[in-house]
Amino acid sequence: MTEHPAFAIEPWAVREPTLDLATMGQTESVFALSNGHIGLRGNLDEGEPYATPGTYLNAFWEVRPLPYAEAGYGYPEAGETIVNMTNGKIIRLLVDDSPFDIRYGELISHERTLDFRSGQLCREVVWRSPSGKLVRVVTHRLVSFMQRAVAAIRYEVEPLEEETRFVIQSELVANEPHPPASKDPRAAAALEAPLQAEEAISKEAQAVLVHSTKGSGLRAAAAMDHEIEGPEGTRHDPAETWDDLARFTATSTVAPGERLRVVKFLAYGWSGERSIPAVRDQVGGAVAEARHTGWDTLAEGQRAFLDEFWDGADVELDGDAELQQAVRFALFHTLQAGARGEGRAIGAKGLTGPGYDGHCFWDTESYVLQVLSYTAPSAAAAALGWRQDTLEAAHERAAVLGLKGALFPWRTISGRECSAYWPAGTAAFHIDADIAAAVVRYQNATGDVAFEHDVGVELLVETARLWRSLGHHDASGNFRIDGVTGPDEYSAIADNNVYTNLMAQLNLRAAADVVQRHPDRATELGVDVEEAASWRDAANAMLIPYDEELEVHPQAEGFTKHGRWDFKTTRPDQYPLMLHFPYFDLYRKQVVKQPDLVLAMFTRGDAFTAEEKARNFAYYEQLTVRDSSLSACVQAVIAAEVGQLELAYDYFGEAALMDLDDLGGNTSDGLHIASMAGAWMAAVCGFGGMRDHDGILSFAPRLPARLTRLAFRIGFRGARLQVDVSDSEVSYRLHMAQKPLAIRHFGHQVTVPTGSPLRLPVPPPPAHPDPVRQPPGRSPLRRQPAQH
Amino acid sequence: MTEHPAFAIEPWAVREPTLDLATMGQTESVFALSNGHIGLRGNLDEGEPYATPGTYLNAFWEVRPLPYAEAGYGYPEAGETIVNMTNGKIIRLLVDDSPFDIRYGELISHERTLDFRSGQLCREVVWRSPSGKLVRVVTHRLVSFMQRAVAAIRYEVEPLEEETRFVIQSELVANEPHPPASKDPRAAAALEAPLQAEEAISKEAQAVLVHSTKGSGLRAAAAMDHEIEGPEGTRHDPAETWDDLARFTATSTVAPGERLRVVKFLAYGWSGERSIPAVRDQVGGAVAEARHTGWDTLAEGQRAFLDEFWDGADVELDGDAELQQAVRFALFHTLQAGARGEGRAIGAKGLTGPGYDGHCFWDTESYVLQVLSYTAPSAAAAALGWRQDTLEAAHERAAVLGLKGALFPWRTISGRECSAYWPAGTAAFHIDADIAAAVVRYQNATGDVAFEHDVGVELLVETARLWRSLGHHDASGNFRIDGVTGPDEYSAIADNNVYTNLMAQLNLRAAADVVQRHPDRATELGVDVEEAASWRDAANAMLIPYDEELEVHPQAEGFTKHGRWDFKTTRPDQYPLMLHFPYFDLYRKQVVKQPDLVLAMFTRGDAFTAEEKARNFAYYEQLTVRDSSLSACVQAVIAAEVGQLELAYDYFGEAALMDLDDLGGNTSDGLHIASMAGAWMAAVCGFGGMRDHDGILSFAPRLPARLTRLAFRIGFRGARLQVDVSDSEVSYRLHMAQKPLAIRHFGHQVTVPTGSPLRLPVPPPPAHPDPVRQPPGRSPLRRQPAQH
Repeated sequence: MTEHPAFAIEPWAVREPTLDLATMGQTESVFALSNGHIGLRGNLDEGEPYATPGTYLNAFWEVRPLPYAEAGYGYPEAGETIVNMTNGKIIRLLVDDSPFDIRYGELISHERTLDFRSGQLCREVVWRSPSGKLVRVVTHRLVSFMQRAVAAIRYEVEPLEEETRFVIQSELVANEPHPPASKDPRAAAALEAPLQAEEAISKEAQAVLVHSTKGSGLRAAAAMDHEIEGPEGTRHDPAETWDDLARFTATSTVAPGERLRVVKFLAYGWSGERSIPAVRDQVGGAVAEARHTGWDTLAEGQRAFLDEFWDGADVELDGDAELQQAVRFALFHTLQAGARGEGRAIGAKGLTGPGYDGHCFWDTESYVLQVLSYTAPSAAAAALGWRQDTLEAAHERAAVLGLKGALFPWRTISGRECSAYWPAGTAAFHIDADIAAAVVRYQNATGDVAFEHDVGVELLVETARLWRSLGHHDASGNFRIDGVTGPDEYSAIADNNVYTNLMAQLNLRAAADVVQRHPDRATELGVDVEEAASWRDAANAMLIPYDEELEVHPQAEGFTKHGRWDFKTTRPDQYPLMLHFPYFDLYRKQVVKQPDLVLAMFTRGDAFTAEEKARNFAYYEQLTVRDSSLSACVQAVIAAEVGQLELAYDYFGEAALMDLDDLGGNTSDGLHIASMAGAWMAAVCGFGGMRDHDGILSFAPRLPARLTRLAFRIGFRGARLQVDVSDSEVSYRLHMAQKPLAIRHFGHQVTVPTGSPLRLPVPPPPAHPDPVRQPPGRSPLRRQPAQH
Repeated sequence: MTEHPAFAIEPWAVREPTLDLATMGQTESVFALSNGHIGLRGNLDEGEPYATPGTYLNAFWEVRPLPYAEAGYGYPEAGETIVNMTNGKIIRLLVDDSPFDIRYGELISHERTLDFRSGQLCREVVWRSPSGKLVRVVTHRLVSFMQRAVAAIRYEVEPLEEETRFVIQSELVANEPHPPASKDPRAAAALEAPLQAEEAISKEAQAVLVHSTKGSGLRAAAAMDHEIEGPEGTRHDPAETWDDLARFTATSTVAPGERLRVVKFLAYGWSGERSIPAVRDQVGGAVAEARHTGWDTLAEGQRAFLDEFWDGADVELDGDAELQQAVRFALFHTLQAGARGEGRAIGAKGLTGPGYDGHCFWDTESYVLQVLSYTAPSAAAAALGWRQDTLEAAHERAAVLGLKGALFPWRTISGRECSAYWPAGTAAFHIDADIAAAVVRYQNATGDVAFEHDVGVELLVETARLWRSLGHHDASGNFRIDGVTGPDEYSAIADNNVYTNLMAQLNLRAAADVVQRHPDRATELGVDVEEAASWRDAANAMLIPYDEELEVHPQAEGFTKHGRWDFKTTRPDQYPLMLHFPYFDLYRKQVVKQPDLVLAMFTRGDAFTAEEKARNFAYYEQLTVRDSSLSACVQAVIAAEVGQLELAYDYFGEAALMDLDDLGGNTSDGLHIASMAGAWMAAVCGFGGMRDHDGILSFAPRLPARLTRLAFRIGFRGARLQVDVSDSEVSYRLHMAQKPLAIRHFGHQVTVPTGSPLRLPVPPPPAHPDPVRQPPGRSPLRRQPAQH
C-alpha cells in the first residue's frame, strides 16, 4: 500500500500535488494514457527520472523463450512479451546551460492532473535551475480516442524572473535502457534492446523511425512532427535521425511574460506483414493528419468522446467522495484499455505497464467486458472479435491436447498459448466458457444480430465442442469434467469444479440455442441436429457436486474434505501465500486465493437458491485470502446480494482503490484493469444488484450506510437506462429509447416506460444476516465513516 | 528393441559374437563394470568409436541449473548431474604406423564376454591393419569388488603373421568430448568439460591427475600404474602429464608367437572436503596397493567375492536358457550397482550410463533393496545408511514445505531435491514410506539389531513424522492424505492414493513399534508416548477408498469415475504416452503407466483379500500401458499370485530382458537397474510366491508351463534358505543355520529343520481364472515355447 500523500480527492480527476520519487512507478501507471491501441506510461516529459519507461503498441511483442528443466508434451516453447516501443514522449529542455531535471536545482512546485473528462494528463512545474533561473513548464498530453494512431503533447515553458535561453529537444528514442526485471514471477521479463533499426528519415520538423523486433519479426514505426510558437528569434533546425534516435531541436531566448510552446504530434503503427515503406508512410500519413487537425481540435474531439462515454456510463456515489473519484478513475482506465483496441486483446494491465508480459487473460471477458458491454459496447465487440481472429491458434491448441473445437490460451498477446505452468494455465479450461458467457452477455446487452451471426455463433460452437470433448458421462449418466483448474489459483487439477461445470453448462446451452437461430452458420460450421442435442444432453447431465453434510457446494469434488489452511500460524508477511508456500500445499488444502464458487454464484446466480448463496458465501469467506486483485469486487457483489452490505462496501473500496492506494504493492507494473472493472461491478452489480442471467435485466439495489445515493447509467439495446437509488426508492429512467423496457425489480417483472421514470420502493432488507468471518488478518480495510 | 543378433545364450555369461556399431550404446551399458563406487562403461579399450564414453564415481556430480519459465515457491534451483570422470580405460595401440581402430583396416573377428562368475569383461579381437598386419588383441577388465577404489586392465597384443612394431599408449583423459544430449527428458543433460585441472604428477609408469568440478566444487583424482611384459627390447618412457592428459608409452617389436602385455592398474577417489595433496595421495596409495596385489590376485579375489555371492543368491531356471542367462545377468548388475556403494546412493542406472542425470529414485528402496536385502545385505544396509546421512537435507526440504520430520528427495545424487516438476516429484511423498518399508524389510531379513538401533529408528521416526504432519483427520475421523502422487506417473496430485496411504500406514506402525524396542533412541529423537500413539491412531484411521459399485479399489479417490483412456485410437508409435500426450490428459483419465494399486497389493498384500486381488488386478491390467521399466516385474508378481502364471511368465521375460533386448530403446543411457532387480522379484516373489509382510517369510510357489524347475537361495538372519520348486513339490533347505526356521507354505506355518530339506507338495492351482486383458497392443511379448 502506498505511503505517499494520497492523491487529492476530486470528483473528475486524479491530482498529484507533489512529486514523490519513491512512488514514481505507481504514478507512472496511474497517469498512463491509452486508447487501447497506443499506451503511454505517465513518464516525465524529459524522460528521467523514471521507474519504468513505457510506450506500448497493442499486440507489438517480442518472443521470450520458455525454459523447462523437465519438459513435457504440449508445453509452449515460446512466450510473448510486450515491447517497450520507441519513446515519443520525450521533450528535453535546456534552461540556459542546465538540463531540466527535477533531481537537480530546486523543484518549487509540481502538480499533475489526470482529467477524466478532457482525457488529458496535465503537468505544471515551477523549477529553479542549478544556475538560479526560475521557470514554469506546463504540459498537456493526450492519446487520441478519435485518431487511434495519434498522441500529442503541448509543451510550454516560460521564465518567471529574467530572460532565459531555452533549447527544446523533442525526440524519438528506441531501445531505451530498462530497469532490471523483478524476481517476482508476476512481473514481466525484461527484454534488452529488442528493436532493430530499419529506416530513419526526417525533413523539417518531422521524423520517422522504423524498427522491427528480432524474434517475432513485427515491424513498427513512430513519427513525430512539431509546431513551434515563441517570441521573435525562435528558431529550429531540421530534425535529425540516427538508428535509434530522432531529434528535433528548437531554441529561443524568452523574456518574462513570454513563452515558448511546442506542440508535438506523434503517430505509431505496426504490422506483421507490411513492408518498410508501407509502415513508414502509414505513420507519416497519421502524423500529417494529426498536424492538420491541430492540438485544439484533437483536444475537443477527446472531450466530446468522453462526454458521450460518461453520459452513458457514469456512476455517481453520494456520501463518499474518495470512492466517487475512484470509481470514475476505474471507469476511465477500463475505457482506455479497450476503447480503440479494434481487433487486439485487452491485456490484464491494459497498456499501462509491462506486468504479466502484457498478456491478456480471462480477466478481459469476465471482468472488463462486463463493464464495456454496458458502457462501450463497440469495444466489447472488438475484443470478442479478436478472440474469433485467434480461432486458428485455439483450434491448434485443442488439437495438440487431443480435444475438439477451440481452446483459447490462458495467457497470450497474439492468441498462442504462452503459459509455462500447465496446472494453472492449460488446465484452466474455464477461459473458454468465460468467452462464451461474454458473447452471450454482449448479445443480450446490445441485441447486435450481425455480431451474433458473424462472430457469436462460431465462438459459441467451437467452445461448446471443446467442452463436449473434454467431459464424459460416467456410469450413472452424469457429465463430468475432470482434472481441471477453476478460477481459484490455490487449487488445481480437480474434478468437477462447480464454476467450470456451471459455466460449461451455460456455454453448451448457449451454443445449442444460437445454432437454432442461425441455421446457415450452423451448416457452415458443420453442426447438425445430433451435435447440438449432445450439447444440451451434456448440459442437462452436468455434475454439480454438493456436500450434503455441510450443506454447501464444494469448490470442486472433495474440496470440503481437505484440510483447512492453518491461518493461525500464517504470518501477515507471508501473504500472498504463493510467494511463501509451495503450490502442493496450497492445492491440497481449503484455502482460496480468489472467488471461485463465489464467482459462480455471480455469473451463474440462477443456479443457486438464496439460502445456498448465503451458506456458501459464509463458508468460502472464511477461506478466502484475497491474494488476487480479481477477488474483492466479486466478494463485494455477493456480499451485497446476501445482505452483508457493509462488508460489501469494504470490498468495493478495496477494488476501487487497488491502484490509487497501490494495495497490491505492484501498481508500478501496470494497473489492475480487472479490479478497475470490478469497481464498476461492485457498484452496479453489487449495490445496484444488476444481473442479466436470462437476457432480462434484473435489479435489487440496496445502499450501504455510508451512501445516500447511487446512480448509474448503462446502455441496453440502443437505449440508456439510468438507475437512481436512494435508501428507500429506486428510479429507473430510459433515455434514447424507442419502446418501454421490461426489467425485474427484486424479482418482480416491471416495465420502465419511455417517457417518465419508474419509481419503486426498496423493500426492507432481510433479517440481519449472521456475521461472516474472513481468515485472521485478511478482512478488508473498513471504509471509514463519512467525513462531514 | 534391439535388432542386432542377440547375445549368445550361455548360463553364466553374456557373449557378443560380433561388433555392431549401431547398437554400441546398448552394449556399452550391458558390458559396464562397476562395484558401486567406480563404474566403467563397456567402451572399447582404444577409446573410439563410442556411443557414450563413461567413467563414473558414485556421487561425483556437477551442478546443473534448473530453469523455470514460471517459477514457484520451493522449486529447487540447482540440479545435479553425474560427471563423466577422467577416463582411465584408454589403451591406444599403434600397429606399425597404424592406430588400432576397428573402423579402419579389417575386423576379422570380435568377441566380448561379460562373465558373471569371474566378474571380468573379456575382449578378443583379430584385426588386419590398413597396411596388412594381422594382430590379435586380448583384454580383460575388472572393477574390483575387493579394493573398491581400484580397476585393472590386462592388455595383450600379438602379431599373427609377421614381426610387428607395437606402440602402446595408456592414458588418463579428462574432459572427453561428449555426444550431444538427447532431447528426451529422460536422458541426461550433457555437461561440457566439467573438470578443471588442479594437479598432474607422474613418475616412471605412474601418473596421477587431480581435477575439481567448477560448480559443485568436488575434487577427484585418478591414478594409473603399469606392468609391462614383452620380448627383449620392450621399452617404455616415463609417464608424461598435461592438464587433462596423462600418458604412458611402451614400445616393442614382437614376433609371431610372442606377445606384448600391459597390466594397467587404476585407482579413483574423490572428496568434497579434502585437499589436493590428500586426494592425490589417496589414489596414489590405492594404485600402489593394487600393483602390489597384482592382476592375478585381484582376479582371484573378484572370483571369490562372486562365488560367495552366487552361493547365497543364485536363481536357477530349468526350461528357459534365455531367461536363465537374463536373470543371472540381472542379479550380477544389481550387485554391481550396490556392492561397494558404502554410504552413497544406488542410482537408477547404477554406474552404467548418464541417464536420469545419474540420480537415485525410489527404485532403490522399492526394487533394488528387495533383492540386496536377501542377497547382499551389507549393500542394502549401506544404501539405507546413505539415506540417514542425507537426513539434514531431508529435514530442510520438509521444513521448506511446511512439514515436520524428513522428506526425502524424489531424485538426487547428494541428497538434495533435484526434481524440477513438482507434480511428479515433490508430490510423490511415497518415497518416504518406501524407505521406511526398506528399513523394515532389511531388518526382518537380517535381524541386524545394531542397524535398527543406529539407523532404522531414526529413519522410521522422521518419516512417520512427515506422514503425521502431511495428513489430517476429516470430520468423520478418517486420516486423509490429500494432493499427492502415487507411483503411477500418469496420475498426479490426487487424494488418498491407496498405495501411499497403505505404505504410510506401514511406516507409522513400524515407527510406533520400533520406538518401543529402542526407548533410548526414542528419547534422543524426542519421541514421547503421545507422539507414538498419534502415529498408531493415524495408521488405524487411515482412509483406504473403495469403489463399492465396481468392487475394486480406486487407485486414488475418484479414479474409477474418470474417463477411460481412448486406447482404440492410440497408435503404437504413440507409446510411451508421455511423449505424445499432455500430462493434463493423462492425469485425468484412467490410464496407468506403471503399477500403483497393483504394487500396493504386493508391498501391502496383507491389506487385501485374495478376491480383491484378483478383481483389482483384472481391473488395472486393462488400464496399464507399461510405459515404465518399473512395471513388468510387479505385474509378474501379482499375475502369479492371482494364478495368471503364463501372463506372469511373459512379464518376467520382459523385466529380465529389458536391457539385453533393449526393450525400452534407451539402454544406451544406462541399464534399468530396477528392472534387473525386478527380474529377481518376478522369479522369487512371483513364481516363488515369497512375501515378508509380518517378518515371517511365506512362500506359495507355482511354476509356469515352460519351467520344469525353479530354485533360488536367499539369506535370512545369517542363514541361507534354498527353495527348490518343481511342478508338484517344493523343497526348503537351510544352510549355515543355527536353528530351524518357521515359514509359511501356502498360508500354513511350517518349520524348516537345520539338517535336512523340508519337502512339501504344491497344492493344485485354483480353478483357472478368467483371462485378463491389457490395453490393445500393450500385452507383453509372449515367451516362445521351449526350444529343445
